[in-house]
Amino acid sequence: MKALPEALQQLIQAFSRLPGIGKKTATRLAFHVLKMDKEQAMELARAIQHVKTNIRFCSICYNITETDPCPICRDPLRDKSTICVVESSEDILLIERTNEYKGLYHVLGGALSPLDGIGPEDLRIKELLNRLTPEVKEVILALNPSTEGEATAIYLARLIKPLNIKITRLARGVPLGSSLEFVDELTLSRAIQSRDEL
Amino acid sequence: MKALPEALQQLIQAFSRLPGIGKKTATRLAFHVLKMDKEQAMELARAIQHVKTNIRFCSICYNITETDPCPICRDPLRDKSTICVVESSEDILLIERTNEYKGLYHVLGGALSPLDGIGPEDLRIKELLNRLTPEVKEVILALNPSTEGEATAIYLARLIKPLNIKITRLARGVPLGSSLEFVDELTLSRAIQSRDEL
Repeated sequence: MKALPEALQQLIQAFSRLPGIGKKTATRLAFHVLKMDKEQAMELARAIQHVKTNIRFCSICYNITETDPCPICRDPLRDKSTICVVESSEDILLIERTNEYKGLYHVLGGALSPLDGIGPEDLRIKELLNRLTPEVKEVILALNPSTEGEATAIYLARLIKPLNIKITRLARGVPLGSSLEFVDELTLSRAIQSRDEL
Repeated sequence: MKALPEALQQLIQAFSRLPGIGKKTATRLAFHVLKMDKEQAMELARAIQHVKTNIRFCSICYNITETDPCPICRDPLRDKSTICVVESSEDILLIERTNEYKGLYHVLGGALSPLDGIGPEDLRIKELLNRLTPEVKEVILALNPSTEGEATAIYLARLIKPLNIKITRLARGVPLGSSLEFVDELTLSRAIQSRDEL
């Protein structure tokens, strides 16, 4: 496309590699960068470089962090008797936002998925088992409510059970603030099965 | 949010300044950058810096370019007797994709919009008039079919008319490949008014 400067084409290309961003959105973003305040655009560029240079995994829980161990593992106020197992660092963010949980985390790095060739050795399961000292009283399996997540939860539960540690998982049921109309049958049938007494 | 490293927070912040990208998408993008191949991420960062450093406006048509004059203005094969007036550089890209137009362009830099405080002096109208030498035979007003675009077209037509230059604008009608069902009444009534004879 002769109409477009090379530099802009490269930026469109680079943007369209991001998830959920097609050619059209990438073009719109690139043109926006062009019109943007120079300092703000440079800030975005630097932020990307900074993230790729400074962020690594916590050697204890495998959360992403700039310092090792991560702030959560280092925090003396967090309850060291509970470990919440999640698939990815994003999930920690979601759980932290609830302000409901004060224990530690463990990032598996995915879920078992034989079809995608992800077996137990591809996840940080050995590392989790190594953390299960007598100090740990409960392991919360906060995996995604997907087939893979469920399978991983069952697998982990079988491994941890012999250690006499309480294993829990997130409650299943109808999401708050929604209408029953929008809840799928599977969720609804689970919600009926595990109904709470008032 | 303690759970998130500073560098990542900055990246989320920077991403969410882009148009159509909210906090949630910005977070997803930032996490994707984290997982991305380092070279590709760095390429995105460099592309942003490159665009902000190397792209400027063509001193003739005000299209974005890395060289001045821009490749279109420099191209000896382009028809210099026609100037297509567009609101922004993005529009040039769209028109070039059609392969239908072989003349020159002129980027106004927006459309008249008294409510947003954009008057004739904020657009490159004087620059357009300066380009209307006797060599120019036709000015195509390819402005957006919005109130502002229409107003700008009428304003420009009034200025150019005395110069005895042919003034045209894009045809209005039903878009191709669509169904009449999805065409709004205004477009349909225009399409009826300017119906073509077969």
